[in-house]
Amino acid sequence: MKLTAKLIDIGTREVLLNIEDARSIGVLAGDRVQILNEKTGVSVAAFVDTTTSLISQGVVGIYRITDEKLGAIEGDLVEVRLAERPTSLQFIKKKMDGERLTKDETFAIIRDVVNEDLTPAELTAYITACYINAMDMDEVEHLTRAMVETGEQLTFHTHPIVDKHSIGGVPGNKISLLVVPIIAASGLKIPKTSSRAITGAGGTADLMEVLAPVEFSATEVQKMTLKVGGAIVWGGATNIAPADDRIIIQEYPFRIDARGQMLASVMAKKFAVGADLVVIDIPVGEHTKVPNVQEGRKLSREFIEIGERLNMRVECALTYGDSPVGRSIGPKLEVQEALRILEGAEAPGSLLQKSAAIAGIALEMSGKAPHGTGSQMAMDILKSGKALAKFREIIEIQGGDPAVKSDDILPGKYEFVVNAPASGYVVEMNNKALISMARNAGAPHDRGAGVLLHAKKGNRVEKGEPIFTIYADRNWRLQNAIEEGRRLMPVLVEGMLLDRVPHEMKWE
Amino acid sequence: MKLTAKLIDIGTREVLLNIEDARSIGVLAGDRVQILNEKTGVSVAAFVDTTTSLISQGVVGIYRITDEKLGAIEGDLVEVRLAERPTSLQFIKKKMDGERLTKDETFAIIRDVVNEDLTPAELTAYITACYINAMDMDEVEHLTRAMVETGEQLTFHTHPIVDKHSIGGVPGNKISLLVVPIIAASGLKIPKTSSRAITGAGGTADLMEVLAPVEFSATEVQKMTLKVGGAIVWGGATNIAPADDRIIIQEYPFRIDARGQMLASVMAKKFAVGADLVVIDIPVGEHTKVPNVQEGRKLSREFIEIGERLNMRVECALTYGDSPVGRSIGPKLEVQEALRILEGAEAPGSLLQKSAAIAGIALEMSGKAPHGTGSQMAMDILKSGKALAKFREIIEIQGGDPAVKSDDILPGKYEFVVNAPASGYVVEMNNKALISMARNAGAPHDRGAGVLLHAKKGNRVEKGEPIFTIYADRNWRLQNAIEEGRRLMPVLVEGMLLDRVPHEMKWE
Repeated sequence: MKLTAKLIDIGTREVLLNIEDARSIGVLAGDRVQILNEKTGVSVAAFVDTTTSLISQGVVGIYRITDEKLGAIEGDLVEVRLAERPTSLQFIKKKMDGERLTKDETFAIIRDVVNEDLTPAELTAYITACYINAMDMDEVEHLTRAMVETGEQLTFHTHPIVDKHSIGGVPGNKISLLVVPIIAASGLKIPKTSSRAITGAGGTADLMEVLAPVEFSATEVQKMTLKVGGAIVWGGATNIAPADDRIIIQEYPFRIDARGQMLASVMAKKFAVGADLVVIDIPVGEHTKVPNVQEGRKLSREFIEIGERLNMRVECALTYGDSPVGRSIGPKLEVQEALRILEGAEAPGSLLQKSAAIAGIALEMSGKAPHGTGSQMAMDILKSGKALAKFREIIEIQGGDPAVKSDDILPGKYEFVVNAPASGYVVEMNNKALISMARNAGAPHDRGAGVLLHAKKGNRVEKGEPIFTIYADRNWRLQNAIEEGRRLMPVLVEGMLLDRVPHEMKWE
Repeated sequence: MKLTAKLIDIGTREVLLNIEDARSIGVLAGDRVQILNEKTGVSVAAFVDTTTSLISQGVVGIYRITDEKLGAIEGDLVEVRLAERPTSLQFIKKKMDGERLTKDETFAIIRDVVNEDLTPAELTAYITACYINAMDMDEVEHLTRAMVETGEQLTFHTHPIVDKHSIGGVPGNKISLLVVPIIAASGLKIPKTSSRAITGAGGTADLMEVLAPVEFSATEVQKMTLKVGGAIVWGGATNIAPADDRIIIQEYPFRIDARGQMLASVMAKKFAVGADLVVIDIPVGEHTKVPNVQEGRKLSREFIEIGERLNMRVECALTYGDSPVGRSIGPKLEVQEALRILEGAEAPGSLLQKSAAIAGIALEMSGKAPHGTGSQMAMDILKSGKALAKFREIIEIQGGDPAVKSDDILPGKYEFVVNAPASGYVVEMNNKALISMARNAGAPHDRGAGVLLHAKKGNRVEKGEPIFTIYADRNWRLQNAIEEGRRLMPVLVEGMLLDRVPHEMKWE
């Protein structure tokens, strides 16, 4: 059916049809149509919304994401027809039926994911099927390669290229802000793409954005890395392994992270930036993604195997994940803490030690440090001020202020101090509750929001001493976070009451 | 965040936020928000669309389906906040992890399905998980009861109440138009809810709508059944087992029909109309849902077991599903064929025999006919004209013209006759290709569109004799159907060429 295009500024891959035209084409809301721009010959698939009044018969409303591909202008004549069913649906069905997918089938699915030719529901069916009918290593390799080849790739002519990745699950894990400058300061190259928080209080990209822009194309990342040895950017803007971001969004409601997809997700990003040497940080602990050391070793072997299949040398570090890394959670607080270490502070030890250990593994793998001395070399680079100098180069090349100091970074102006309700040892520190409190305070969107811990698990505190401070950029957010803290009690001190009649519940 | 409501006539459960407000609330497109109408205290969940220009900051666009629940008017102040994650997501996750769901967990999921609190993607995850990790009979019973109790139910004070169901998969299966009048004419009650075609060329509701309105409330169906003994309505309008329709829509892209969900879907509808005696028609054949008699028997035992758990007597009939029932496919053509049989025609035999057999089983179950004589009693009721008289009563009470005759029903005015390209026997009749051709011709939306078969599998045809005619209400649809027929060759005659160079391919 030929319809006249009307552009609509709604940010989805849809078209709006008059209900009569929709019936005539034979589609319902949610169905897929194919739209042909008759002037340019460009044809795209989009999903149908219907209206009885906003759009008259003979007109089709083209939403913004649809028009990014279609390139129609107001008044263009477009042909709208019932779309063919994407062939990849049959491969998804095959995976639902418990069969293994071939390389070509996996590529077909991932191409449709990248082209946004699958609905969120269809993609969810694929993810669910792969979660239940776990992929074997061949399938993981195919998925990794498909993710790489459907996006941008970096090509370096000097080697080795280093990369690191943390599989997440522990709050306050700002170590990339230290590891990347240490590695780059040693003379190695590390083009680090990172993520924004989805469920967390701040991804590395959210943190770095406090200091400098983080949205760059793959080519720009490559140029910056060649120039100063490293960069810390948001992967989502680079179009590197774009399928992965779409998959992660659909996994979010179920908090799943299927083993095979996680392997492919991590390794695709490393392969696509041209990494030769990769260190994977695997936080282990009851409330992380990996509950114990045995599981951590098993996962490590799988990362190493996929690495071998793709010609990357991978080493994994199982790290302590039961408490936050350092004492800060939330973008500005974490950036401040990381800058202080770069400026020479020797605390918090958990952050300093972990950053040096991870950087040290990469230094040893590259041959820069003899076996067993990497961590010390990383410490030396930190203490010499070279890592700080390198970090400033990175901030500058990304467009930030290289003169920035830790004291310039001010957390949110609204704060609430929580004091110990009793004397004793901190016996419990609930990662998920801390993150939830920081998110309620506004993190990661409100950069100044977060939580600063004054005591950590195992520390002795006296009644009335501060145990943590909540920061927020907006007062109502602070109130939300206080309420969430009262409800979840993220930090427990021996001897404090665990339950009271709710309407009397308070901090002390 | 407090925003001013602006009503938007788009038929989905969404709200449109300015991108800045969305960021401030902490949501992205596709996320779920909770909206509170401050005036009425009504609170509903909806999904987020974002815009940079259509809606200014401080305003929220409320789409039609959202407002059906919210009841806001233009200018109302509403509170919009990040929604809580529905608790049923954790039960869906549990099913993904291969565990069995309890009754309460299943009810929580189905309540959220009915309230549209789950996204299509979340519902798809549930469907996929149940498809892969098949439900046991307890879970099927819980699902059936949950579907029943979250919708309307009929309550009859006289018994027995009869119902029938065909699990589908064979084209032209218009037998309900004969079975319902026969049963009602015998003095039994049969409140038949039926579906519209999703993948087929015409569901029973699409067919009945050629003769009379089919959209009634559950109460109206009950009243009509009490008055004339039967009704043939569209189940979607009754709000009987509404969860089922939503599940079926999400299964559609994958053409799946998970065993447990199919059992629950069928039995919930029968239980909700208060049926005591149920006959299930299970077409068996390579291209139907049940490939062979062994599978058909297994499925029958499961239907019978769920029936026992719900106090319904169930009998199943395994029927021939390898060719269409009768000779017509598409709403008007099928209605015409059914009316001719009611008016006394003795052909096509496949339609006459199958209808009498299915009706006969119900007559025997009810005690109206001694064992072994049900089919003959059904034939007698047909021949006596009582079934036609009853059908006219049903048409009249539903608001149609009771004087309608088969010759009044005219198929589409555009037609194309396909002749046998060679002499020989019809050796192949592809159900799916026939349906696809009928749908390309416009069925079921265009009521006159469809296919009339002049020969069936096993018949001898001479070269140049017509083998089928395609009908359409619109010429471009006819051309589409002809093209589809050329591509799929739905009817094969021994000795016809199966392949030619494509640009020369034609019918003879």
